[in-house]
Amino acid sequence: MKDLQNQLVTWRRDFHKHPELGFMEMRTASIVADQLEKLGFEIQLGREVMHPDFCMGKPDEETTARHIEWAKAHGAVENYLPYFEEGYTGVVGILDTGTPGPTVAFRVDMDALPVYESEDENHFPNQNHFRSVNHNMHACGHDVHTTIGLGLAVLLSESADALRGRIKLIFQPAEEGVRGARSMVEAGVADDVDYFIASHIGLNVPFNHFIASNNGFLASSKIDVAFKGVASHAGGHPEEGKNAMLAAASTILNLHSIPRHSEGATRINVGEIHAGSGRNIIPDSAELKVEIRGATTELNEYMKEYAEKVIEGAAVMHQVEHEITLAGEAISSKGSPELAEIMHQSAENVGLTSEFENNSAAGSEDATYFMEAVQKRGGYATYCIFGTDLAAGHHNEKFDVREDSMMSSVQVLFEAAKSLTSE
Amino acid sequence: MKDLQNQLVTWRRDFHKHPELGFMEMRTASIVADQLEKLGFEIQLGREVMHPDFCMGKPDEETTARHIEWAKAHGAVENYLPYFEEGYTGVVGILDTGTPGPTVAFRVDMDALPVYESEDENHFPNQNHFRSVNHNMHACGHDVHTTIGLGLAVLLSESADALRGRIKLIFQPAEEGVRGARSMVEAGVADDVDYFIASHIGLNVPFNHFIASNNGFLASSKIDVAFKGVASHAGGHPEEGKNAMLAAASTILNLHSIPRHSEGATRINVGEIHAGSGRNIIPDSAELKVEIRGATTELNEYMKEYAEKVIEGAAVMHQVEHEITLAGEAISSKGSPELAEIMHQSAENVGLTSEFENNSAAGSEDATYFMEAVQKRGGYATYCIFGTDLAAGHHNEKFDVREDSMMSSVQVLFEAAKSLTSE
Amino acid sequence: MKDLQNQLVTWRRDFHKHPELGFMEMRTASIVADQLEKLGFEIQLGREVMHPDFCMGKPDEETTARHIEWAKAHGAVENYLPYFEEGYTGVVGILDTGTPGPTVAFRVDMDALPVYESEDENHFPNQNHFRSVNHNMHACGHDVHTTIGLGLAVLLSESADALRGRIKLIFQPAEEGVRGARSMVEAGVADDVDYFIASHIGLNVPFNHFIASNNGFLASSKIDVAFKGVASHAGGHPEEGKNAMLAAASTILNLHSIPRHSEGATRINVGEIHAGSGRNIIPDSAELKVEIRGATTELNEYMKEYAEKVIEGAAVMHQVEHEITLAGEAISSKGSPELAEIMHQSAENVGLTSEFENNSAAGSEDATYFMEAVQKRGGYATYCIFGTDLAAGHHNEKFDVREDSMMSSVQVLFEAAKSLTSE
Amino acid sequence: MKDLQNQLVTWRRDFHKHPELGFMEMRTASIVADQLEKLGFEIQLGREVMHPDFCMGKPDEETTARHIEWAKAHGAVENYLPYFEEGYTGVVGILDTGTPGPTVAFRVDMDALPVYESEDENHFPNQNHFRSVNHNMHACGHDVHTTIGLGLAVLLSESADALRGRIKLIFQPAEEGVRGARSMVEAGVADDVDYFIASHIGLNVPFNHFIASNNGFLASSKIDVAFKGVASHAGGHPEEGKNAMLAAASTILNLHSIPRHSEGATRINVGEIHAGSGRNIIPDSAELKVEIRGATTELNEYMKEYAEKVIEGAAVMHQVEHEITLAGEAISSKGSPELAEIMHQSAENVGLTSEFENNSAAGSEDATYFMEAVQKRGGYATYCIFGTDLAAGHHNEKFDVREDSMMSSVQVLFEAAKSLTSE
Repeated sequence: MKDLQNQLVTWRRDFHKHPELGFMEMRTASIVADQLEKLGFEIQLGREVMHPDFCMGKPDEETTARHIEWAKAHGAVENYLPYFEEGYTGVVGILDTGTPGPTVAFRVDMDALPVYESEDENHFPNQNHFRSVNHNMHACGHDVHTTIGLGLAVLLSESADALRGRIKLIFQPAEEGVRGARSMVEAGVADDVDYFIASHIGLNVPFNHFIASNNGFLASSKIDVAFKGVASHAGGHPEEGKNAMLAAASTILNLHSIPRHSEGATRINVGEIHAGSGRNIIPDSAELKVEIRGATTELNEYMKEYAEKVIEGAAVMHQVEHEITLAGEAISSKGSPELAEIMHQSAENVGLTSEFENNSAAGSEDATYFMEAVQKRGGYATYCIFGTDLAAGHHNEKFDVREDSMMSSVQVLFEAAKSLTSE
Repeated sequence: MKDLQNQLVTWRRDFHKHPELGFMEMRTASIVADQLEKLGFEIQLGREVMHPDFCMGKPDEETTARHIEWAKAHGAVENYLPYFEEGYTGVVGILDTGTPGPTVAFRVDMDALPVYESEDENHFPNQNHFRSVNHNMHACGHDVHTTIGLGLAVLLSESADALRGRIKLIFQPAEEGVRGARSMVEAGVADDVDYFIASHIGLNVPFNHFIASNNGFLASSKIDVAFKGVASHAGGHPEEGKNAMLAAASTILNLHSIPRHSEGATRINVGEIHAGSGRNIIPDSAELKVEIRGATTELNEYMKEYAEKVIEGAAVMHQVEHEITLAGEAISSKGSPELAEIMHQSAENVGLTSEFENNSAAGSEDATYFMEAVQKRGGYATYCIFGTDLAAGHHNEKFDVREDSMMSSVQVLFEAAKSLTSE
Repeated sequence: MKDLQNQLVTWRRDFHKHPELGFMEMRTASIVADQLEKLGFEIQLGREVMHPDFCMGKPDEETTARHIEWAKAHGAVENYLPYFEEGYTGVVGILDTGTPGPTVAFRVDMDALPVYESEDENHFPNQNHFRSVNHNMHACGHDVHTTIGLGLAVLLSESADALRGRIKLIFQPAEEGVRGARSMVEAGVADDVDYFIASHIGLNVPFNHFIASNNGFLASSKIDVAFKGVASHAGGHPEEGKNAMLAAASTILNLHSIPRHSEGATRINVGEIHAGSGRNIIPDSAELKVEIRGATTELNEYMKEYAEKVIEGAAVMHQVEHEITLAGEAISSKGSPELAEIMHQSAENVGLTSEFENNSAAGSEDATYFMEAVQKRGGYATYCIFGTDLAAGHHNEKFDVREDSMMSSVQVLFEAAKSLTSE
Repeated sequence: MKDLQNQLVTWRRDFHKHPELGFMEMRTASIVADQLEKLGFEIQLGREVMHPDFCMGKPDEETTARHIEWAKAHGAVENYLPYFEEGYTGVVGILDTGTPGPTVAFRVDMDALPVYESEDENHFPNQNHFRSVNHNMHACGHDVHTTIGLGLAVLLSESADALRGRIKLIFQPAEEGVRGARSMVEAGVADDVDYFIASHIGLNVPFNHFIASNNGFLASSKIDVAFKGVASHAGGHPEEGKNAMLAAASTILNLHSIPRHSEGATRINVGEIHAGSGRNIIPDSAELKVEIRGATTELNEYMKEYAEKVIEGAAVMHQVEHEITLAGEAISSKGSPELAEIMHQSAENVGLTSEFENNSAAGSEDATYFMEAVQKRGGYATYCIFGTDLAAGHHNEKFDVREDSMMSSVQVLFEAAKSLTSE
């Protein structure tokens, strides 16, 4: 046990030191694949577990290729890299007990954020020499999630004989921006799953506390909008232009003006705009980054459909072309009480203070796609939270968790695995 | 001559006292028709000289029917009313000399404005007891124009033997709002015309002065826009509505935002909006009155086509229906120098101070449709101005002209008629 | 009891037949005052119970004066009219038992809506010949509320000896548009009140059901916005104008664009706009009717303060003047559980099916001003709903209630009065 | 003469090969200063001829410092660099004949454009090996202007004895973006000038043609707008933000909506916007580049003042701060006919086909500040154009002139200098 605890810390610090952005977790995924295989798991990699058509906001080829080089130079397990080199970095590990029984899946995520990690000497990763070596940072705890997944693999591997059915460990890329889950679902990863457990650390739940069913995730769509017009000299021949910026300005005001829905919270934000190429030129291009959210999938859809009409209409107004790209999407979810009950018991068995359900509004999560898929086929799904004490909020440059939260988290998941399969 | 002068004053005061709005000049037209017939002119009335599809901004049936009753009660010549009762109030008088020669047309207009005439005791029409009997007013001098047309008819009738070819006197309805001319052109009124002379009194040209070719008229389109959405309770179910007011507000800002054309002056104005039916109801309707102008027909078209796109796009944005109605339209024009020269000479012959050409921007005039039609078939056209001293500006409640400007105006036109046909 | 029941029906039908809009309930108030005085209540009228500075959206003097004539001609009790003739139509009746005890207040409202009542022969008021005699209608049940207030006065008057303390019956004007309550609170009507009970009939609560504490009222501000610019000829001298419509259009889009608050529902709607005076004139005026709502008073304030900035900024943009007039306002509320419990018991004693609390979002109510004032001084307040079956929804032209709901409503309030004072 | 012709080509090609952007013409200015001094001119450099408060759109210190290094490495005459190192790169050369007479000034400009010069092998500078060595380009002919200024210095120096009065040769930085002239005027460079001649090559005037008075320059203001708000999480706490992008979008639409002036052409364009820092963050910053133009200084001022109100109002609307920076400005001008006549004669004497005046609308020029200053003190000013054949339009990557236009241009200016001073 002590050994595993040390191993968890080692893994976590290694992942933390080498953060990788979504769809570029080549180094991380190669290590995960290597470990799983060594532990006797059957592994599925890359395109086998990710449908290319549903990878949202994936970096371009050049960026991806450049990162492969970085991964090679920073300790990736090279023989797995061919599976990941196009940016399909998902890994699934399967432990088939050989005896009949349910399929139980655990999902963890692996990606980091474009945050520059604090250089404060009191920042724990600095003190202990595992501060990020590049300009990204694991500022949301996905390094811990990956570690928990591997820790769970160790325990499962050791106790395989006591279990029945099949266990799937899903290591998902690109959860940030809710971009990666859907491609795994569309590739069929959830098709045989009877019980599905996703989990997250932190989220303002205190150390040694546990939430068995977190249901407050907002549905969300991230869309990129591009208007394409025609440039012309603004002083000399304004009439020869097609003004993409006027279309964009009308879009901004009208997106924010969408009459809000009476059935629950919605949000819309145009977070960025870049338009035009010079002071005296009628702007021929405008690009906007938009985020839409809704308390439910339906509310999010209401906003999204209205938004699409606004964008289309703005293009008609100024006779410019428009393109809408989905850069991320998540739905809302409702955990299965039957499975939440089992997680609740597992946490109490391990000695944590467990709360059955929490419905307060939170951010968005694309694990909800797995949950929907499993529940649709008659299975059970839930989203759990492992409490910890945070050094600073999620996405902050000083974000950090208590490393002693990891072992108990692994134990809760292992308890649940046993309870769901050993019967 | 003294008799005609008195007759002119009598006619003018009678018309001034009984002002009628566009497409409702039933009383005026009936008197004109009666006089022309008595003077030996062949007359064409109503639908014969107006194409129903091109009457813009025509009042509804009920308003038209109500005015017929007023006309009957105020001295209309009843036997002509059947020709005018649907609001097609145009009159054309033709004097055919029977000898070969060109066809020369003179256009005057007959409609008044919805202005409440001043009750000031120093206002000349008040002093002389011919102030308007209703809530409209001849505040632009069309009473004088109609009178000049009849005066010209008298002189022509007396000198028919000395003339050649054919003279057409065109009495046009609904010049205000540039709504009536096009329907007469489309009905073929200009199809046989070789020389066309339109004229106006005032327009800041001083007494005893004359402009032989006024070319500053702006092309213009008057459009009415209606957005039709769906009402819903703004507090209870905003999402069930389709907000016509948001479409309208976007339209207003974006119409005014149309990048201006480099080749000359353009104007656009949303002059009126009425939208919504109650504070707590998502507005299901919005109605806008828009005016577009351009220094040339092409510039006006540029603005109009862009405006139509803006309106269409705004409707798409908020998923409402839209309707665009043309409520008036005029084109720009350029007088024929050959004909302007003859008008110039005619005016000098009569003793007026004549200026050959004036190009300063003015309002809009739909006589330009006649001009275009005549010039297209190889004929000549011009637009003249008779100077006078004004008591107050055009469209003002105290507008008034010098009545002794009428006789000289009649004489200039008669001189021109002679010079164009007696050769 | 049967007598009172008949009396209730008589009163209700008389009020229904003579509906009066807010701040013009002269006839109704005069009858109420007369009845209360006859029943031995001390009465306070007009300005004594209404602070002029806080009457929102009060009709102008001419409209008020005209309605006085109507009231005189339709059965007002004339000797009370002088108190009401300026439109301060509130009535308070006080029953002082002379023995020490708490002050218990019941509020009912008296005003009707500008709805044209259905002429359908199956509409109950038509069948029974008490359809509105004018163009307004009691389409929200305030006729019933006034009746219930008078019925309660009868029972209290009969049992005065069994009670202690003081009972105040508050007959409020202008609840529609949430315009009248605040003026009564500011005049001190709530200053001595220990228990305050407001009530409403209908609101989708079924017949024989009762809500002891209705807490879903939204805070709301109704504001009228006027922009005042400078007119000019849009074709001739656009630069001389100050365009009030551009300010209004920017206001509309930006009001709807206010980023929504994370703590609860908010609403904003521009329900009406009228701007401009002619197609070819730069609009010198624009008037908007705006409604703001928030789940709490604070949320409503957030929206209102932001809205005021938007309006101010739009005026700066186009160099026009602006004026914001508060045309109605209500706050949110939370009933006192102690008092709700007593109402709950009272309703069950009378045989109704009572629900203790209902928090679903509803419209707005200005009785909340009374509630706040009473709770602030340490008293207790609640808002009750009497169920009934509705012929059609509130504010609908066919709205109607079951008249047999009235007697039980009176009894519930009487029970509560006894239980609060007779101890 | 042949020698001078060769010298002109040498200078021009050297300047062309080493283009420098506005306020960074250190290399060019050092060569100009060196040559002028060698020719016997008194020289005034840097801050002596440029007022720091009126340098618009000047690059920051770091950029300026970096360019000094480039200049040193590319042949600048080092001993003059200290005068220019802060970016005040103006040079004035004075030839004082010692005999009484007028002061005659000639202005040329020295700056290049951020255009990447064509690599086409047929592009003349490529063929002759003087293509730009950096990423900028003399794509507007200012290399030729500087050369003409030096050529004129040579002739003047040779004929100093035949002249009277004083000759000032003004070498202005940063004419592109109309940024540099005003600072020279404010430093007093025009204060003693009796005759002022600015000139430009090209501008669609054919080879061997000349315009003595070009009056079509538009007044223009280039303004940078920055809105500064407060960021907040768009999903979690939108109400805590102050949205700079909504202010910017309202600004864009309303700037374009400014009602156009009736007295002449105006233009307004928002050429660039960059706002926001992330999809899910309420944007706390927005930066816009705006260009305003007017046919006259007054029309430009009308637009500019209205624009400032729009920007200020948008900031009020969304409670953000705003800053407006003037990044360039030019006024309109009207050449003095007396001086134009002399230029006209000078050109004809040299054998060019000269046109006295051209009023067609062109771009903007800040030589107009010199013209205004000279005319205000009773002097005479004009703006001339030297025709040439262009390989491609101004600002195009293939722009090029005929080098044999240079000698005749020098001669015209020399003729004028003689005729203005040798009398």
